[in-house]
Amino acid sequence: MSGNTFGKLFTVTTFGESHGPAMGCIVDGCPPGLPLTEADLQQDVDRRRTGTSHFVSQRREADQVRILSGVFEGHTTGTPIGILIENTDARSRDYERLRDRFRPGHADYTYQQKYGVRDHRGGGRSSARETVMRTAAGAIARRYLAMRLGVRIYGYLSQVGPLLLEPVDPPFAYQNPFFCPDPQRVKEIEELIWKVRSAGDSIGARVTVIAAGVPPGLGEPVFDRLDADIAHALMSINAVKAVELGAGVRSAAQRGRVLGGISSGQDVIAHLTLKPTSSIQVPGSTIDLAGNAVEIVTTGRHDPCVGLRATPIAEAMLALVLMDHYLRHRAQNADVKSATPDISAPRA
Amino acid sequence: MSGNTFGKLFTVTTFGESHGPAMGCIVDGCPPGLPLTEADLQQDVDRRRTGTSHFVSQRREADQVRILSGVFEGHTTGTPIGILIENTDARSRDYERLRDRFRPGHADYTYQQKYGVRDHRGGGRSSARETVMRTAAGAIARRYLAMRLGVRIYGYLSQVGPLLLEPVDPPFAYQNPFFCPDPQRVKEIEELIWKVRSAGDSIGARVTVIAAGVPPGLGEPVFDRLDADIAHALMSINAVKAVELGAGVRSAAQRGRVLGGISSGQDVIAHLTLKPTSSIQVPGSTIDLAGNAVEIVTTGRHDPCVGLRATPIAEAMLALVLMDHYLRHRAQNADVKSATPDISAPRA
Amino acid sequence: MSGNTFGKLFTVTTFGESHGPAMGCIVDGCPPGLPLTEADLQQDVDRRRTGTSHFVSQRREADQVRILSGVFEGHTTGTPIGILIENTDARSRDYERLRDRFRPGHADYTYQQKYGVRDHRGGGRSSARETVMRTAAGAIARRYLAMRLGVRIYGYLSQVGPLLLEPVDPPFAYQNPFFCPDPQRVKEIEELIWKVRSAGDSIGARVTVIAAGVPPGLGEPVFDRLDADIAHALMSINAVKAVELGAGVRSAAQRGRVLGGISSGQDVIAHLTLKPTSSIQVPGSTIDLAGNAVEIVTTGRHDPCVGLRATPIAEAMLALVLMDHYLRHRAQNADVKSATPDISAPRA
Amino acid sequence: MSGNTFGKLFTVTTFGESHGPAMGCIVDGCPPGLPLTEADLQQDVDRRRTGTSHFVSQRREADQVRILSGVFEGHTTGTPIGILIENTDARSRDYERLRDRFRPGHADYTYQQKYGVRDHRGGGRSSARETVMRTAAGAIARRYLAMRLGVRIYGYLSQVGPLLLEPVDPPFAYQNPFFCPDPQRVKEIEELIWKVRSAGDSIGARVTVIAAGVPPGLGEPVFDRLDADIAHALMSINAVKAVELGAGVRSAAQRGRVLGGISSGQDVIAHLTLKPTSSIQVPGSTIDLAGNAVEIVTTGRHDPCVGLRATPIAEAMLALVLMDHYLRHRAQNADVKSATPDISAPRA
Repeated sequence: MSGNTFGKLFTVTTFGESHGPAMGCIVDGCPPGLPLTEADLQQDVDRRRTGTSHFVSQRREADQVRILSGVFEGHTTGTPIGILIENTDARSRDYERLRDRFRPGHADYTYQQKYGVRDHRGGGRSSARETVMRTAAGAIARRYLAMRLGVRIYGYLSQVGPLLLEPVDPPFAYQNPFFCPDPQRVKEIEELIWKVRSAGDSIGARVTVIAAGVPPGLGEPVFDRLDADIAHALMSINAVKAVELGAGVRSAAQRGRVLGGISSGQDVIAHLTLKPTSSIQVPGSTIDLAGNAVEIVTTGRHDPCVGLRATPIAEAMLALVLMDHYLRHRAQNADVKSATPDISAPRA
Repeated sequence: MSGNTFGKLFTVTTFGESHGPAMGCIVDGCPPGLPLTEADLQQDVDRRRTGTSHFVSQRREADQVRILSGVFEGHTTGTPIGILIENTDARSRDYERLRDRFRPGHADYTYQQKYGVRDHRGGGRSSARETVMRTAAGAIARRYLAMRLGVRIYGYLSQVGPLLLEPVDPPFAYQNPFFCPDPQRVKEIEELIWKVRSAGDSIGARVTVIAAGVPPGLGEPVFDRLDADIAHALMSINAVKAVELGAGVRSAAQRGRVLGGISSGQDVIAHLTLKPTSSIQVPGSTIDLAGNAVEIVTTGRHDPCVGLRATPIAEAMLALVLMDHYLRHRAQNADVKSATPDISAPRA
Repeated sequence: MSGNTFGKLFTVTTFGESHGPAMGCIVDGCPPGLPLTEADLQQDVDRRRTGTSHFVSQRREADQVRILSGVFEGHTTGTPIGILIENTDARSRDYERLRDRFRPGHADYTYQQKYGVRDHRGGGRSSARETVMRTAAGAIARRYLAMRLGVRIYGYLSQVGPLLLEPVDPPFAYQNPFFCPDPQRVKEIEELIWKVRSAGDSIGARVTVIAAGVPPGLGEPVFDRLDADIAHALMSINAVKAVELGAGVRSAAQRGRVLGGISSGQDVIAHLTLKPTSSIQVPGSTIDLAGNAVEIVTTGRHDPCVGLRATPIAEAMLALVLMDHYLRHRAQNADVKSATPDISAPRA
Repeated sequence: MSGNTFGKLFTVTTFGESHGPAMGCIVDGCPPGLPLTEADLQQDVDRRRTGTSHFVSQRREADQVRILSGVFEGHTTGTPIGILIENTDARSRDYERLRDRFRPGHADYTYQQKYGVRDHRGGGRSSARETVMRTAAGAIARRYLAMRLGVRIYGYLSQVGPLLLEPVDPPFAYQNPFFCPDPQRVKEIEELIWKVRSAGDSIGARVTVIAAGVPPGLGEPVFDRLDADIAHALMSINAVKAVELGAGVRSAAQRGRVLGGISSGQDVIAHLTLKPTSSIQVPGSTIDLAGNAVEIVTTGRHDPCVGLRATPIAEAMLALVLMDHYLRHRAQNADVKSATPDISAPRA
């Protein structure tokens, strides 16, 4: 209820502060018998990792995933899966100056307001580091969806600042540090990011995620339509300010894919827009705990564009939604023998 | 779990099919002692009502709200509030032809796939008629927020088809059938809708909703950030395909209002984009239950622009989210004596 | 969250005060395709009905069940089932004297403490009348369990005051007003109740409920073991003060039936003990709203033994738990191909 | 949903198998600002610990509690509290023989049925070792209840086998290995346990837990009455087969303490009955995975009376229920200015 659990049947509950001893989560409700090793989670966690290149935040974490329960002799057992990653590179001295003042555009002020206390080191719980557990948990969902249902989830960077990117070669998105789906545009992005970074500034981005092979019937009308839960999931990612399904804001021209909030068997497509990160290294004005106006320069290690790292996180969240809805659907409707024809191929 | 409940602490559970005997809901968790009468709900329900003008669907319902429990001698008692509206104008003969074929762009096909059976009359549960209960329940939330916390929620049509509308005079939005916030543009909209309607076509729209006076601290990191729950709420409305918070898709230039997913005391602003309704009166092709290609003309009573009616529904959903988060916040943090200064007025 | 919803996947949300216009509930999550009519619910509601004989409370309600949604052409559709029963015989004048004083042993005082306000007429929400919706909703669960899984749920009065009753002839429990399972003991009970009633006093009872044919695997370790949820369900019935599973308080000698909180395929047996009703017609002392000591005689229409009416309610609650756990189990474990042998018949 | 989370607002989600690398839990929803250290949790965990004396299971665990998040500079921050205890003394060789056969009276068979797979080492998830996290989490709840509300929770052994024990000196229960509340009876218990242990047998017990100083108003009618949630909580403890509130099975004579399921300000008293443990060291017959009848002797390290260790666990569960209900109550009813008099002291 305090917001650290996602999902209804396939649930992920996370904990951990940026500069505490560890990040962790519990995945409950996973079907038993799924082949699963730590390496399966490590793969997705590594894709997300801070510091994969010099284009994103320079914090370096080993991010070694440990499975503490719920897996026995290489298979899930149906009991809760405990996952732990220790924080090994948390230099909290960097943040001592932030103890009594609020970084503009960060959650510092609102956490203080809400809880009357906060872990000021590196954003504490509000740090994007929290998303590491989303990718670990999402990897389990993704694995089940792929192995049992043939669902394929992928994503790519579709916009960064003014640059619009087309999915010319989607698999290529996994082979460059920007998740750019167009081999011809990588150089351009690289230059843009360097320029923004040099100026101590930051820039927004847009990411597209797609699930292919989703079985029809997923989504619970009326409040938990598939698209509503996808919106919830993606909007819960740090810095996301817009979520679009299908044609989204250009909806005048769109062809529906999720109808009445229920998957139809066609691809599920979602887009998320991320605002520029707030940790800019140009001096700004803020207030301190006593309410006095003070100047602040945010010097911690941060990204010129948080959107560059969002693709694997968005894929993970999409996987979690689909997995949860698959279990929700079959709980109620496992008896249904659907005699309806495949909408994609009407008989002439 | 099957999707007909919204909220965690202030919960709304709805039922009802478009052409069944009645629509109803149960609002649970409402604080006791709130002055409340049926007239308070009627007001918001009336604003949403089908047939307020000849510009929207011509179905005419009395939509008379009855409160069946939870209110005693004019005040809420803290027990569940049962609400009922009987369906008085449901001409189901109109829909007999749809028994064995699926309207394109509707939920007909996906409901059949999901449940193996459906009430084909007027969309059944997937009909926008379902939203009548959202406005009734939302009216309770809105009333509490206004009377106890001074929160003011309002909205307006910000785009219809190609027309962009500015909030020149927000209160005016309540005085015209389009929720248009600019007195100068009403005629233009009227002409556009007539044109679309005459062509048997439909058109998309965008609605903006705003909550002013929201106390700081609302929103539960990390998965139930205030913006994530708002996205969920608004995306759960029929035909909505995009939700934006603050600057949304134009996020490069935005000033944050909900930071780290927690309200800061500043206005909460959200936008929703609605696709064109699918009930177009030009012949289209579809399939029937046996999978054969057939032609279909959707002749039921429907809107040329569902977005025209979305404003009060979106306001209701925003009210429900804020109310729920207010209770969630005070459950955990009622002890917090926030000594933080008001961010909007730093001392010099 | 405010306690008016039962179940996680097969959920029942109820509303209604004893002397309000109606009692109602919404059953969400029911699998589609189940044959269901109002008569199916009426049957169980009638078994519970106040006034079936002169041995229980003399209030007479028609208790006519209406299904308002979720059923189409005689089958459930998978959408929420709205159920309504109007209160037709609510003489609230009887209760005017209770407006400013608290009946001892009733919820009058605690409701006032909790909510600061209460509907004082006949107990309002705290009245046992609320259980009518449990039986209606339970009837749906029971029907699914019987038709799809072959589960048979039955119960009987196992103790009333000092009289211990054995299940000599369980079906006979449905043929007498006391749910007594032994034809030889009815007369004895009748005499006991008359005696208690004449004295204006009341008496406790114990009820036993049994589910036969429950599939193995139901129950979610560790907190939602099947027996924990059964305990929750039965203890939520008015006046119940003890719940026992299997051998219960005599556990030294018992053979386990629900092991590790998971059904094993053997019968599920539970017992509930109900305290004597508090509406005794002998004068007692209490306090009024101002805290003054006052005398009170509770003269409303009430039962000398609430336990006499508890059997169908307990059966309904057991059905709701099993139904919910069946859906919960198959959500997670529908893939499991259980190769384990039947525990009841080991091969020699 | 899969049963590893307890509570609605103050939630505890646990993981861990008896012979896996670690036990852990996440406590979400804890109010910020509560002074808390690892030592506070260690204290309650130590009280529960296996091997405090030679009367209970001889497994020796260091059971060192680590707090991984949610506490900063000695106070809770309102973010989720991650807790970890590593399993340091798990000799799984002892259990290799159980890989393909089911111990009678254990959860071996039902886990295999439910999940199609199980961690056979020491009961895996079904081991009572799981309760270590309940005591750790319960310690947080108990601390809040004591420091903020003055609630005092205590318990004692009220029966073991045929011996009935009276609370002659409740604090003494904390000073002997049996939680016996009567200094005169310790020797008697000791002799009984030695006798049972020598015979390789086991014996049942009954535990009483009490909460004093509970504020009035806790409990959510109708399904989540305080007593229903207490029953749920206590019945979810391994081996518990009966839960009684107040006078329980002797309800004919009881004075109500929780009325209408809402606390009244008077003490909350509950009793739980635990069946004899199933790990008896006398040969028994069972089946193996292939369904063949085989003989089995359970030789693992186990208790002659699991009830001897149940007191701190039951106290923890009671604390969790009260804490959760306190937050639930204030979420809805924080506005209530209760003008009702104190029921315990009516004015003359």
